[in-house]
Amino acid sequence: MSDFLAGLSRNPLAKRLGAPTVPELRRHHPGDPLLAGPVLVADVGGGARFAKAASALVEEQGVPLLSEPGEQKLHGVVVDLTGATTLADLAAAQQLLGPAVKRLGPSGRLLLIGAEPAEAVTPESAAVAQALDGLVRSVAKELRSGATANLVVVAGDAPPTAVDSTLRFLLSARSAYVDGQVVHVANPVGNPREPAEVDDPRAEERPLDGRIAVVTGAARGIGAAIADTLARDGASIVAVDLPAAGEGLAATANRTGGTALQLDITAADAADRLLAHLADRHGGVDLVVHNAGITRDKLLANMTPERWDPVLAVNLGAQLRINEALLDDGSPLRPEGRVVCVSSQSGIAGNRGQTNYAASKAGVIGMVRALAPRFAERAATINAVAPGFIETEMTATMPVGTREAGRRVNSLKQGGLPVDVAETIGWLGRAESGGLNGQVVRVCGQSILGA
Amino acid sequence: MSDFLAGLSRNPLAKRLGAPTVPELRRHHPGDPLLAGPVLVADVGGGARFAKAASALVEEQGVPLLSEPGEQKLHGVVVDLTGATTLADLAAAQQLLGPAVKRLGPSGRLLLIGAEPAEAVTPESAAVAQALDGLVRSVAKELRSGATANLVVVAGDAPPTAVDSTLRFLLSARSAYVDGQVVHVANPVGNPREPAEVDDPRAEERPLDGRIAVVTGAARGIGAAIADTLARDGASIVAVDLPAAGEGLAATANRTGGTALQLDITAADAADRLLAHLADRHGGVDLVVHNAGITRDKLLANMTPERWDPVLAVNLGAQLRINEALLDDGSPLRPEGRVVCVSSQSGIAGNRGQTNYAASKAGVIGMVRALAPRFAERAATINAVAPGFIETEMTATMPVGTREAGRRVNSLKQGGLPVDVAETIGWLGRAESGGLNGQVVRVCGQSILGA
Repeated sequence: MSDFLAGLSRNPLAKRLGAPTVPELRRHHPGDPLLAGPVLVADVGGGARFAKAASALVEEQGVPLLSEPGEQKLHGVVVDLTGATTLADLAAAQQLLGPAVKRLGPSGRLLLIGAEPAEAVTPESAAVAQALDGLVRSVAKELRSGATANLVVVAGDAPPTAVDSTLRFLLSARSAYVDGQVVHVANPVGNPREPAEVDDPRAEERPLDGRIAVVTGAARGIGAAIADTLARDGASIVAVDLPAAGEGLAATANRTGGTALQLDITAADAADRLLAHLADRHGGVDLVVHNAGITRDKLLANMTPERWDPVLAVNLGAQLRINEALLDDGSPLRPEGRVVCVSSQSGIAGNRGQTNYAASKAGVIGMVRALAPRFAERAATINAVAPGFIETEMTATMPVGTREAGRRVNSLKQGGLPVDVAETIGWLGRAESGGLNGQVVRVCGQSILGA
Repeated sequence: MSDFLAGLSRNPLAKRLGAPTVPELRRHHPGDPLLAGPVLVADVGGGARFAKAASALVEEQGVPLLSEPGEQKLHGVVVDLTGATTLADLAAAQQLLGPAVKRLGPSGRLLLIGAEPAEAVTPESAAVAQALDGLVRSVAKELRSGATANLVVVAGDAPPTAVDSTLRFLLSARSAYVDGQVVHVANPVGNPREPAEVDDPRAEERPLDGRIAVVTGAARGIGAAIADTLARDGASIVAVDLPAAGEGLAATANRTGGTALQLDITAADAADRLLAHLADRHGGVDLVVHNAGITRDKLLANMTPERWDPVLAVNLGAQLRINEALLDDGSPLRPEGRVVCVSSQSGIAGNRGQTNYAASKAGVIGMVRALAPRFAERAATINAVAPGFIETEMTATMPVGTREAGRRVNSLKQGGLPVDVAETIGWLGRAESGGLNGQVVRVCGQSILGA
């Protein structure tokens, strides 16, 4: 919790302004169990494939599996609504969810699993599938004490195993700041691997074991947190940043037991140099995290090429070139390769003073969607994360009013931490996450700012 | 402007709180010119088909057509970016837009026209097309004095005439409260008609002349404004509402010179009765506006079927049944038929206390998307409007804090008026709007609340 908000809660003026209490979010620490208590799993409408997968996960984790709400506080509620096709099914969901939501504990998890509206056979089933979107975004705004609600939309041809890594992420403390979101899971690209063996505890604790991950902008801030978190989960880190950031870069490499590469990603030969480095020194790469980004804010009326061009070059142009190179013949990207691009809430909602930044971050989204089918041909995926208000050195220097407003306008009533972005990237970076491709996942605590 | 805000601006405490000044929005009145001053039209990247269409419209309207910003205040700026495929094109757009935006007058109009990101040939062109989304949403947040910015995304096979009704709407005062939005125009359904003859002033003033429009929930509020506005634009109104709303319903019918039909749209035979009435008494229908809607707010934890079921039945179930009937053989829906469904910002962003309402309004969106191809087979379209904070009797009874917050959290710093929703429906209801199908258009002043 921020010191400012803690102090604010004792200020009488703040009380008159209705300053909210700030819940403490449970976050993941190595050795913590995935599930902190009983989980209710149910299905409505007769589709129970994913409820079965969720039940198996709960039993594997050794916490009580409930089929209806009792008196206990619940860690999680998972409802498989993939078979819900009528307004009567939707009404049944309401009657199930009401009492269940009442029992959800601090940092609890509500997870709805629904069908793809675009695949619906009848207009009513399309309406019902889309209704879950409005329902989950509303209930996410009602939950308290750090509890979250998210919707997993699964394609009709996705096997139950396709959602495994997503269930693990969204039910666990790793997804602390992912709230009110809708994630689409398709039939996995390539030859999907079965979920990791449950009797190997390292598989749960170190889901990125043996994977080589390159992170740009890794010298500090969110990039450093990404490197730390991926390393914690077993990845070998190749930390990339500008030569001028050498000290922070070396620190990241040392901290993570990885290596450092000083590189200006906007240089004409940057993609070639990066990929040659990955091929020659590491024998390939499994996870590419395009995190490096800059801002040069100014109203459009006063915008100059000096502010526009570098933002587009760093945030978008460099990603475009590296991604093209990753798709070339002889690319070091290995099967089950994962590319994760850092977009931004500004790229979705727009932001005053940030036409350049928002254009670059929206551009990242366009690029990710365009490249998804091409990466799929290589049994790889490309996705984006879109952070909302994340506590960094940059936000620490904001005017206090702007900063506090940014922190408070979301359902969790606080800014996220760099680790929250990193955990989301780790989930998308898993070999088991091949069902996620071309997605944009917001890490924003369900910020009210949107499109 | 609201009396409260006008008073607030003289309150010293309000100044300390940073209460914004509220711009007066230009709205359409019969006889007003479409364009209130010079319009700058340009293209970037070599695609100029839609710039030409815009130039022709400006010349038809007899206001100065500029190709670069001068010293004059501008009514509008239209930039055709359908040919923009590279970051260099995007930089060129920035250099054009900066000076142009500076000259935009009160209630001015910035309109970007872009290509479909999903149709892009290269990842870079997909990124550029999507970048316009972030750019326009950002600049919309920067504009002042009631000026708006919107993006029209056109399919590659859409002829220049396909955007005519959309240019007229978004450049005119009719779109006063549509801001920061992205509208997709495709090759029109059916046999698209050429834009109305320009030398017939009635065509401009009464674009719905000769069309029969049915409006549900027409006794009061937004429904009454829809009936009034469509009648002003030439439509014959069939006003529908509950028998209990008979007095308001009769008033709407009298005011608009239309007819009234007392009908509970949730009754089992409602669709049959409505369509038989339209066929027998009016010989068909051209425009169906599903406006009737109710709220029964309660947190999901305390939700009951008594609150859930009627909201879903009125807001979604009735629309589903009437739309199915409109698609049946022997339906009274005529060629160039238009169905417009009223969704809500809550159906996009979710809303605390409104799981039922948000589910119903999200459901409307799912239904519209699912039905669009089926209506297209009949040379008809179906679209949705999603109002944000609109000043009605309902909002007038809100607690003052909630109401003022709702009014202020958008780029125009005020609530919209029922007529703003009505004008948007009128545009979608035109015979010339066949390029718009399966769309959801927010009427929210670029509310910050989104998904």
